[in-house]
Amino acid sequence: MIETRTKGIVLLSGGIDSATTAAIARKDGFDVYALTIRYGQRHVMESKAAEDIARTLGVCDHKILSIDLRAFGGSALTDAIDVPKSDDVSEIGEEIPVTYVPARNTIFLSLALGYAEAIGSSDIFIGVNAVDYSGYPDCRPAFVEAFERMANRATKAGVEGCKITVHAPLIELSKVDIIRQGHQLGIDFSLTHSCYDPTADNLACGHCDSCLLRRQGFELAGLADPASYA
Amino acid sequence: MIETRTKGIVLLSGGIDSATTAAIARKDGFDVYALTIRYGQRHVMESKAAEDIARTLGVCDHKILSIDLRAFGGSALTDAIDVPKSDDVSEIGEEIPVTYVPARNTIFLSLALGYAEAIGSSDIFIGVNAVDYSGYPDCRPAFVEAFERMANRATKAGVEGCKITVHAPLIELSKVDIIRQGHQLGIDFSLTHSCYDPTADNLACGHCDSCLLRRQGFELAGLADPASYA
Repeated sequence: MIETRTKGIVLLSGGIDSATTAAIARKDGFDVYALTIRYGQRHVMESKAAEDIARTLGVCDHKILSIDLRAFGGSALTDAIDVPKSDDVSEIGEEIPVTYVPARNTIFLSLALGYAEAIGSSDIFIGVNAVDYSGYPDCRPAFVEAFERMANRATKAGVEGCKITVHAPLIELSKVDIIRQGHQLGIDFSLTHSCYDPTADNLACGHCDSCLLRRQGFELAGLADPASYA
Repeated sequence: MIETRTKGIVLLSGGIDSATTAAIARKDGFDVYALTIRYGQRHVMESKAAEDIARTLGVCDHKILSIDLRAFGGSALTDAIDVPKSDDVSEIGEEIPVTYVPARNTIFLSLALGYAEAIGSSDIFIGVNAVDYSGYPDCRPAFVEAFERMANRATKAGVEGCKITVHAPLIELSKVDIIRQGHQLGIDFSLTHSCYDPTADNLACGHCDSCLLRRQGFELAGLADPASYA
């Protein structure tokens, strides 16, 4: 008897969160179809990391789409705006940071929805989390739920009664819990990339919000962080 | 006294519907910021038409973004699938046609939302209509409302209480009403492009669903169709 597994689209950025999300999807019985969006990041390390992670996870397919969101501007991740740096994780503010990319998760989920619809999948996975990054409006449960509701009105599957589900398995987890879970699932964290502002020779800066959260997460998890810092 | 006009993002494809939508946005007092998405259509006439229309409308800015949705497949508009042809508009089926591009309007509206957020606009215009094209799930009022609700949970503006509105002024209009309204607003329809499958020398085929609806619309409106047919 041939076992039919379910296709799951996983948005894979190359960071810890999306790698862990992909491993969760696989553990939960999904055949993983990874989707990486190159959106005009100032560095391209992220999509290289996504390729390495996809390969080690044994995904069924990995699509890399390019769209240049620099055209819109408005973010330190795509524009020539300085990425904020600090030595102290407690200095990360409550406000929406300049590293926010306008409507990024909406755009990413929409593209995942197109991919899902094209290959007959009704399960989309995204590694957002609302705990350590509450400054981004599109990382909250209310957003994910609203996207799912919209997706079920947007697509053939939705109108034909085959419900589309947006899975956000990390949404209530802290960074340390995500790292612990990824570690248990065998993620090779040396392949992941977190830094918003790496050096020319691809060392992590160690001081942007993303590096600070990563370092603190590994420390609290009692695990060695395999990233190379400047 | 300087009059402050409101910025409106208009998704401009180069067809009759989006050109009329842009003219309505302008009439309603919006400064128009046009957004055209090149998504791997088999023909590029559409974005050329969008540029001509944007210029004659006097938009404040016109951004053209490229994203290759052919990567996902699943549509006659992006793949090597035959576009259906007929001599009779009544043969257009009720089912979702092969020219449907998976999640296209969701993707387009998401990109418009990113543009809106980046320039501080909270009004997005899209020329969908549910009457003459009810086969597309993402052309229905329920979809537009669900997208708007999601957009208000996805963005800074939304979470800060500045409501984002998705305007779909054509949604209840038939093609003939759209043509009449565009005509009244001074649209030069010779600049618009409708055909799904033009010839190598850029003549409209006259027999795809889009050509059939256009020709019938002009006929019912009692206006000459300035398109050149093969």
